[in-house]
Amino acid sequence: MPDSVYKIIELVGTSDKSWEDAAKNAVETASGTLHDLRIGEILKLDMTIEGGKVKSYRARVNVSFRLDA
Amino acid sequence: MPDSVYKIIELVGTSDKSWEDAAKNAVETASGTLHDLRIGEILKLDMTIEGGKVKSYRARVNVSFRLDA
Amino acid sequence: MPDSVYKIIELVGTSDKSWEDAAKNAVETASGTLHDLRIGEILKLDMTIEGGKVKSYRARVNVSFRLDA
Amino acid sequence: MPDSVYKIIELVGTSDKSWEDAAKNAVETASGTLHDLRIGEILKLDMTIEGGKVKSYRARVNVSFRLDA
Amino acid sequence: MPDSVYKIIELVGTSDKSWEDAAKNAVETASGTLHDLRIGEILKLDMTIEGGKVKSYRARVNVSFRLDA
Amino acid sequence: MPDSVYKIIELVGTSDKSWEDAAKNAVETASGTLHDLRIGEILKLDMTIEGGKVKSYRARVNVSFRLDA
Amino acid sequence: MPDSVYKIIELVGTSDKSWEDAAKNAVETASGTLHDLRIGEILKLDMTIEGGKVKSYRARVNVSFRLDA
Amino acid sequence: MPDSVYKIIELVGTSDKSWEDAAKNAVETASGTLHDLRIGEILKLDMTIEGGKVKSYRARVNVSFRLDA
Amino acid sequence: MPDSVYKIIELVGTSDKSWEDAAKNAVETASGTLHDLRIGEILKLDMTIEGGKVKSYRARVNVSFRLDA
Amino acid sequence: MPDSVYKIIELVGTSDKSWEDAAKNAVETASGTLHDLRIGEILKLDMTIEGGKVKSYRARVNVSFRLDA
Amino acid sequence: MPDSVYKIIELVGTSDKSWEDAAKNAVETASGTLHDLRIGEILKLDMTIEGGKVKSYRARVNVSFRLDA
Amino acid sequence: MPDSVYKIIELVGTSDKSWEDAAKNAVETASGTLHDLRIGEILKLDMTIEGGKVKSYRARVNVSFRLDA
Repeated sequence: MPDSVYKIIELVGTSDKSWEDAAKNAVETASGTLHDLRIGEILKLDMTIEGGKVKSYRARVNVSFRLDA
Repeated sequence: MPDSVYKIIELVGTSDKSWEDAAKNAVETASGTLHDLRIGEILKLDMTIEGGKVKSYRARVNVSFRLDA
Repeated sequence: MPDSVYKIIELVGTSDKSWEDAAKNAVETASGTLHDLRIGEILKLDMTIEGGKVKSYRARVNVSFRLDA
Repeated sequence: MPDSVYKIIELVGTSDKSWEDAAKNAVETASGTLHDLRIGEILKLDMTIEGGKVKSYRARVNVSFRLDA
Repeated sequence: MPDSVYKIIELVGTSDKSWEDAAKNAVETASGTLHDLRIGEILKLDMTIEGGKVKSYRARVNVSFRLDA
Repeated sequence: MPDSVYKIIELVGTSDKSWEDAAKNAVETASGTLHDLRIGEILKLDMTIEGGKVKSYRARVNVSFRLDA
Repeated sequence: MPDSVYKIIELVGTSDKSWEDAAKNAVETASGTLHDLRIGEILKLDMTIEGGKVKSYRARVNVSFRLDA
Repeated sequence: MPDSVYKIIELVGTSDKSWEDAAKNAVETASGTLHDLRIGEILKLDMTIEGGKVKSYRARVNVSFRLDA
Repeated sequence: MPDSVYKIIELVGTSDKSWEDAAKNAVETASGTLHDLRIGEILKLDMTIEGGKVKSYRARVNVSFRLDA
Repeated sequence: MPDSVYKIIELVGTSDKSWEDAAKNAVETASGTLHDLRIGEILKLDMTIEGGKVKSYRARVNVSFRLDA
Repeated sequence: MPDSVYKIIELVGTSDKSWEDAAKNAVETASGTLHDLRIGEILKLDMTIEGGKVKSYRARVNVSFRLDA
Repeated sequence: MPDSVYKIIELVGTSDKSWEDAAKNAVETASGTLHDLRIGEILKLDMTIEGGKVKSYRARVNVSFRLDA
C-alpha cells in the first residue's frame, strides 16, 4: 500500500553540554522503541539555571515515525 | 462522570491524489485503534517532489479522541 | 471618492467532497447578500469524523467586500 | 543518569464550572497512568454552547512527563 | 441542503469576577439575537486596572452561528 | 448593568498618501454607523502597485464598539 | 507635553486558587512600585503539578505603566 | 563535500480547479529551471472571486532546491 | 495558458523620512528589473538609532511578480 | 571583553501625527537614560479613537541597549 | 506568603563560538545583579557576518527571576 | 545615495557537527556570490535521522545583502 501514515510525538531532551546533545538524547532514546525515524524538528530551546550558572540545555523536538511500517 | 477528557495526537497522511485523501488516510488509519474520533484539524500541508513532478500530497492532522470512553 | 473601505467577515463552509467545495459554499452563500467580493483567504481547514470516517470537510474563510460601493 | 528525556502529550479537559477545573481534570486523569508530571501548559481555551447558554468550559493542555523515570 | 455555512464574529465580554463570567456575558448577549451558537473560542484575556487594583476581567471570544438556519 | 459587551469588526482602509490616512479612512467610515469606538488595532499593512509605482497604501484594522450602549 | 510614553514589563503571578488570582497577584505586586497601571494582558497560562495534583496556577502578564514624562 | 546548501523560494500557483493543481503548477513551472526539488510547503491558500463566483484557487508554496548540485 | 505563476521576494527598504517612503524605495527599486508587480506586503517595520536619535526607518516587504508565463 | 550583552525593553509611544512620530517619541524618551541604543523594532501599531475621530497613533517598540557599556 | 511573583526580562548575549555560549553570557551577566534565576528561554538566534564570514552568534533570551525573594 | 535597498534570501545549511556549523555553511556559501552580507537570522532548526542516529543538523537561515552595492 503506497500511502503511508506517520505519527509525530513531542519530546524534550536535556544535556549539560549543548542543544545538539540535548536533541540527540531525545531522538536516540525514542529510537529504542520506535523505528524508521526520519526528521526531528526543534520546537523550543531553553536552559535551566542554578546558582547563577547554566545547569542544562533543553531541546523540545517533534519526531515523526511510520505507523505499521 | 460528566467531565470527559480527550487526547490529541498528531498524524501525517500521504496520498498521490489530493490533500483530502491524505488527511482521510491519516484519520481512517487512526480510527482502527482509537474510538470516538470527532474532529481532525489540519496543521500543515506539503508535497514531495521527484524528477520535477509532485509525487505525493501530505497532510499533518491533529486528531482528538476520548480517553476511557 | 478614490479611497474605498472594505469589510472582512469570517465564514465557515462545509462539504462532504472537498475543501475547495467547502470554501466555495461559504463564498457563494455570502455573495447572495454582499457585492463586489474579491478575495477569500483560507484561515483554517478541518474535518468532522463520524463512525471512524470523514463526514465533512470544513474551510474557515476570510471574505472582503466593499462598503457602500 | 543525568540527561533525562521527557515526553509531552496534549489533552483536553472539560468542566461545567471553570477552566481551572477543566485543566485540573485533564491533568489528574493523566496522572493516573503517568508519573512525575511537572508542568501543564494551556494551549487553548474554549466553551461549548447549548440553547444560548455556556454548557462547558474546555482547556487544551500540554503535559510533560519523564520517560523511563 | 446538507452543506451549511457558519459565520464567526468576535466579541469582548467584561466581568468584575472572572474570565469565565466575562466570556459567558459575551456569549449570552450574542445568543439574544443569534441562534444555534455552538462554540466560543477564547482569543485573548486581559484585565483593566484602576488605582492599582484589577477592576475588570475581559475575554475576547470568537462565536460561530449558522447562517439561514 | 456594569458588564458591557463589545463587538470587533475588521476593516481595510486605503489611501494614496499614507498608512495613517488609510487607517483613519477605515475608522471614520465605520464611525458613521457605529458609536463609542475606542481602539483601532492594525492587523496588516500592504501596498498596491501599478506600472512599477506604489498606487495605494492599505491598512487592515480591528475596530471595537460597544453593543447596545 | 501631550505625547506620553509607556513601558511594558512582563510578570508571572502564581496562586493555588485560580488564574484570575495569579494575574491579580502579579498586577497588585507591581502596583506597589509603579503608578498609573492601565491594562494587564495575559501572555500565557500554565500550572505546576506535584504528586499528580495541580499545585499552583501561573499567569504570565504584560503590564504597561506611564514613564514619568 | 558532504555538507550541501539549499535555497528556498516562494511561489504562488493558480488554477481554476483545485489547490492541488495550483500548487502543482507552481512546482512544475519551477522545476523547468531548477533541479533537485524535494519538498513544497504550503504557506497560504486563497481564492479570487468574480461576479460572486470563485474564479481561481491560489496556493503560496515554499520550494527548496540544492545550490550547485 | 490561463494558470499563471508568481514569485515572491523579500526586500528591505530604508528612508530617513517614513515607513511609506522606505517601502516605496524597496518596491520601486525592484520594479526596475521585475515587471507586473501587484502587491507589496509589509512583514516588519523597524528603525535604526544613532546618538539617541532615529536615523532611518526600515520596512521589510514581500513583493510578488509574474514569472514569464 | 568582546562578548557584549544587550537588554531589550518594550515601550509604547503616542503621537497625534503619525506612527513614525509615536515610535520616535518612545525611542528618544528612552535615550535620555539609556545609551548606545541601536535598533527599535515595531511590535504593534494601533490608534485611540474619540468622538468618531482618530485621536492618537500608538507604536509599541522593542528597544535594545548595551548593558555595562 | 506562598504566592510568589516573577519578572521576566529579555537579554541578547553574543559569542564568537556558539549559541550556547552566547546564551550563557546573557544569563551569567544577569545573575550578577539578579538572584534566583530559574529558566532561560530562547526567543531568537542569529549571526552577524563580516567579510563573508560569521563573526558572532547571538541569542535572545527570556530570563525570569523572583521579585522580593 | 542614502536610501539603500536590501534583499533577503532563505537558505538551508547542513552539517554533521552542529547547528552553528550548518548555519555557517549556508552563510559562507552565499558569500561567494553575494557581497555585503550583514545578518543571518535562524528561522528553523531540525535534524535528519538515519538508523536511529542523528545524521545531520540543518539550519534554515534568512540572509540579507545590499542590492546594487
